[in-house]
Amino acid sequence: MKSFAVIGTGAVGGFYGARLQRAGSEVHFLLHSDYDVVKKEGLRVDSKDGDFHLNEINAYNSAADMPVCDVVIIALKSYHNTILTDILPVITHPESCILLLQNGLGEEARIHKIVPECNIVGGLSFLCSNKVGPGHIRHLDYGRIAFGEYREDNKAAGTTPLMQQLAKHFSAADTPISLINDLILARWMKLVWNIPFNGLTVALDTTTDTLMANPSTEALARTLMNEVVSGAAALDRNIDPNFVEKMINDTRKMAPYYPSMKLDYDAGRQMETESIYGEPVRQAKAAGTSMPYTETLYHMLTQLQNRRSMNK
Amino acid sequence: MKSFAVIGTGAVGGFYGARLQRAGSEVHFLLHSDYDVVKKEGLRVDSKDGDFHLNEINAYNSAADMPVCDVVIIALKSYHNTILTDILPVITHPESCILLLQNGLGEEARIHKIVPECNIVGGLSFLCSNKVGPGHIRHLDYGRIAFGEYREDNKAAGTTPLMQQLAKHFSAADTPISLINDLILARWMKLVWNIPFNGLTVALDTTTDTLMANPSTEALARTLMNEVVSGAAALDRNIDPNFVEKMINDTRKMAPYYPSMKLDYDAGRQMETESIYGEPVRQAKAAGTSMPYTETLYHMLTQLQNRRSMNK
Repeated sequence: MKSFAVIGTGAVGGFYGARLQRAGSEVHFLLHSDYDVVKKEGLRVDSKDGDFHLNEINAYNSAADMPVCDVVIIALKSYHNTILTDILPVITHPESCILLLQNGLGEEARIHKIVPECNIVGGLSFLCSNKVGPGHIRHLDYGRIAFGEYREDNKAAGTTPLMQQLAKHFSAADTPISLINDLILARWMKLVWNIPFNGLTVALDTTTDTLMANPSTEALARTLMNEVVSGAAALDRNIDPNFVEKMINDTRKMAPYYPSMKLDYDAGRQMETESIYGEPVRQAKAAGTSMPYTETLYHMLTQLQNRRSMNK
Repeated sequence: MKSFAVIGTGAVGGFYGARLQRAGSEVHFLLHSDYDVVKKEGLRVDSKDGDFHLNEINAYNSAADMPVCDVVIIALKSYHNTILTDILPVITHPESCILLLQNGLGEEARIHKIVPECNIVGGLSFLCSNKVGPGHIRHLDYGRIAFGEYREDNKAAGTTPLMQQLAKHFSAADTPISLINDLILARWMKLVWNIPFNGLTVALDTTTDTLMANPSTEALARTLMNEVVSGAAALDRNIDPNFVEKMINDTRKMAPYYPSMKLDYDAGRQMETESIYGEPVRQAKAAGTSMPYTETLYHMLTQLQNRRSMNK
């Protein structure tokens, strides 16, 4: 693993890519709106672990100009993944590995169709960072990534040599890594929290603490969580029922919090409605289990999104 | 039926009460905030069918001062029905009839517990009117009421002499009446429209036409309607499945419309969340059928309501 590509140089991709380069890796960044600034001024990371600035950046505004890389880190918002159809074949070789740093379900399978020969690792990042200006990232807290390898047959891949190799590079770049045996289980477990709190904070225009303070929405959050557990079970993933109570209790202890979807919506950005709501509902339905509570939120969020798009 | 009491002299009760009095009936109006104005200036109705003004009103600000009446018309918002516990025993005799002009489910049974000897008729009014000032009602359109008699065993009462007698008085007061065999069926049929469109216009802050223009919320509206049909079926009420498509098509043809709950919410008034959402969900659940889509909206509306109450 000598070269890394970062597709989506924002709060997530820009942060991890910059850390890899700082640690000595060769990193190639694909940029869009920030290209001119980053080409000229580099990448700046203000971090609780120490600020740093990279002057020399391999910056590109077209994938056609990028070299083939050993690792391709995808850190786009999932609704932008459509561009990958054109990009991935150009910047990968058959031994390249794809690292997908996104929430939600279903994207690994789509990427596999584009580059069937590449191995794919899914990453769940626990990172609190924002892009505060072009090529300028503020890292507030956390940073750990959990890696799990994708398998076409949807079985648990266990801990693979590829994951371990990737972990070595990220650890060297000051990024704590945990390895997960079953990527699908991990993604559903993350949905246990994401499905209630992302959608409800958007639809009810509020914070997590208000949802927890109200018995009606606390009950609804718990019902949604249990429904996600049922959806996972339909796909042969068993989430301990105590996990729901743990998530409820953890959320109760949290400071008032806007989940990422709420931040996206308030900032006028698109929401990741399909990968966080549509895809789990469809996968569970295909496996014979309906998720009506989640589906209600899904339709409401879709309407909020569409209405805004129409007004643009 | 010589004397009528109107409990709740607003856009609905004030309108029908004034029409009854104009037609020669003896009507006694219980008022709260409008008492002083109405006592002094009477009731004013601006109507598409002709404006009129009643100077002499039997106005009361306490039920203790009211006479016992043959018919008690309840036109409160359902969440104010708690006051009936004190009021009804004072103004009824054992042959009095209660006419309940409210949406939603479950209130007849509560009233029956207060005055077990009185017959109860449920009325579904199809009326478009607003209170525009104290004792001042604007009647915009429609006005028909559908009457159905309540039975403690929840069976269909058929067309009863009491309903016919009531209908005679209202017809004489220029109010078209239809008689319904089965009050419970009629209430559930009204919920088929009320459950999707009241809650979704509030939660998504929009009008009926926007919901219909968006495939996602149109699908959700249809799903909610079908769920109400299932809820009714659990209570042995069979609603023709074509009724759902008829309601969808009727709504598509309507001008952009704010349902009453949306008007209540926007005006800072309480919503009838319990009688339109909570009670149907509970009744269906008690009969072994869950209504998860409706329940999701129910919890969300409850939170919107509670949050606002806390801010007051």
